[in-house]
Amino acid sequence: MTDFYPSRVSSLPSIMERKDPVVYGSKADGPLNNKELDFYKQNGYIFFEKLFADDEVEMLRKELHQTMNNHKSVDKPYVVREQGSDEIRSIFEVHKNTEFFQKLSSHERLVNITQQLLGDDVYINQSRINFKPGFKGKEFYWHSDFETWHVEDGMPRMRAVSCSIILTDNYEYNGPLMLIPGSQNYYVQCPSGTPDSHFEQSLKKQEFGTPDQKSLKWLVDQSEGRIDRATGPAGSVLFFESNIMHGSSGNISPYPRSNVFFVFNSIQNKLKQPFSDLNPRPEFLANRENIKPIQPKPFDLTKKLVQF
Amino acid sequence: MTDFYPSRVSSLPSIMERKDPVVYGSKADGPLNNKELDFYKQNGYIFFEKLFADDEVEMLRKELHQTMNNHKSVDKPYVVREQGSDEIRSIFEVHKNTEFFQKLSSHERLVNITQQLLGDDVYINQSRINFKPGFKGKEFYWHSDFETWHVEDGMPRMRAVSCSIILTDNYEYNGPLMLIPGSQNYYVQCPSGTPDSHFEQSLKKQEFGTPDQKSLKWLVDQSEGRIDRATGPAGSVLFFESNIMHGSSGNISPYPRSNVFFVFNSIQNKLKQPFSDLNPRPEFLANRENIKPIQPKPFDLTKKLVQF
Repeated sequence: MTDFYPSRVSSLPSIMERKDPVVYGSKADGPLNNKELDFYKQNGYIFFEKLFADDEVEMLRKELHQTMNNHKSVDKPYVVREQGSDEIRSIFEVHKNTEFFQKLSSHERLVNITQQLLGDDVYINQSRINFKPGFKGKEFYWHSDFETWHVEDGMPRMRAVSCSIILTDNYEYNGPLMLIPGSQNYYVQCPSGTPDSHFEQSLKKQEFGTPDQKSLKWLVDQSEGRIDRATGPAGSVLFFESNIMHGSSGNISPYPRSNVFFVFNSIQNKLKQPFSDLNPRPEFLANRENIKPIQPKPFDLTKKLVQF
Repeated sequence: MTDFYPSRVSSLPSIMERKDPVVYGSKADGPLNNKELDFYKQNGYIFFEKLFADDEVEMLRKELHQTMNNHKSVDKPYVVREQGSDEIRSIFEVHKNTEFFQKLSSHERLVNITQQLLGDDVYINQSRINFKPGFKGKEFYWHSDFETWHVEDGMPRMRAVSCSIILTDNYEYNGPLMLIPGSQNYYVQCPSGTPDSHFEQSLKKQEFGTPDQKSLKWLVDQSEGRIDRATGPAGSVLFFESNIMHGSSGNISPYPRSNVFFVFNSIQNKLKQPFSDLNPRPEFLANRENIKPIQPKPFDLTKKLVQF
């Protein structure tokens, strides 16, 4: 299969233009108006304040903590704990393993938007819930999710949207997601192994699959220096394009952060073999099995679910 | 000598009230008006946008880089380099070692304010210039400078002001200084050694001289959740109280940060023996020799200095 987005194949980084649309659908295809679609197209993300109301957020938080509690003794790779502690930080595959999050992943409020952005039926490529306590939230360096999904998971094209439902207020000072607007239009080919470069550069840590500083600076220059932050109250939802360059600073504030995270992928963009020599990552990180398009459905989060 | 602010003496952290004024002078003693003095008293800091004009900032930047260049081959403890590289990050003692920064440290625009805040003649307890490149700025965890200066350097009372002249724009996203307003009114006694506590807590890293999470949360609660950031254009100056709790997130943005940093101490508050069993830190971190009050003087930064 043609590799439209090669990366980690050269020791020198380079930047190429995106070969896919950012917005696939139009106004007629869903709830977003032209202004909103244009914003997403230009910036590579869109942030809706309080897409979920306070009583819904309360229920979401409750279910998140309930799910964490239920997994206390579950020793599976999809339950990720803090190093040197039993505390759970993330649980993947919640759209398969829990009824509540399965329903949430089909929520028409989310799915209608992603279907419109991707101009297609969608499925969940990855899901997780995250709880990060305050004081010691770790930094995440700049990256394009698509670069990883393409090279390591075999996602062919840029036709996926990440959706983060924030369950705690995001402030400027508790490590909100930072995005370089417009960067979705460029694909930064990450260097492979050790770069052929001079002494000074080789002293700096150059990680596998990490964009180089020159390319990052170039991306920020394209956005005229803008680095946007996804700050806002609990219940807000960020939709962001698979290839947008993003990262976050650490969080030394006392404020914990929790969110629910879904990756919606176009049904025409299912995973192939990784575009590299790497073995495909496990199912809980990159869904391949029983892929079916989601039927968007209403879901009243505040109603107690029937237990069965 | 009586230790008014014991710390690191118990395995349990605790909080005590400040025993010294925050503002020692009054309106008559200097350039700050009552509103500004009240702000400092309440919040423990005050930030003046563009206290130095653009042409002055240009000269400051030039002198900073010149000084860094001049110290390229200087192998002294006061020249601090990046780990695993020759790059200089900080140079201490610039108020002694360079004419420009000596004059800057006596600049009436700075000294008149610190004299007013401290209600006394002042001297420089520490000085440094900092250059931190983008992409890899490190996080600094919450701390009170006074706690260190007291325990490790023997500063008796809370009667010192730090002054940071920022030479690059400080944004929300390039790791600006974060301050907990009001925290200057409380002294967090840091735990010594390993705390007497249960299993879970002992797993968490507890560093010597680091405030505990419960105390930090309590401080932020006192400020009703406020965590302020010193953001603003190059040329702005932050004055902050010796005991205010502050820290900063890492900086993964491409924007470097540089600043000039002076600690002004009241002439009545000269260093004694450390309030601990520790040996005093070296002179370049904590000045003890030839302490004389500064005579505030005008200084035209934009005029070329006479070389002698």
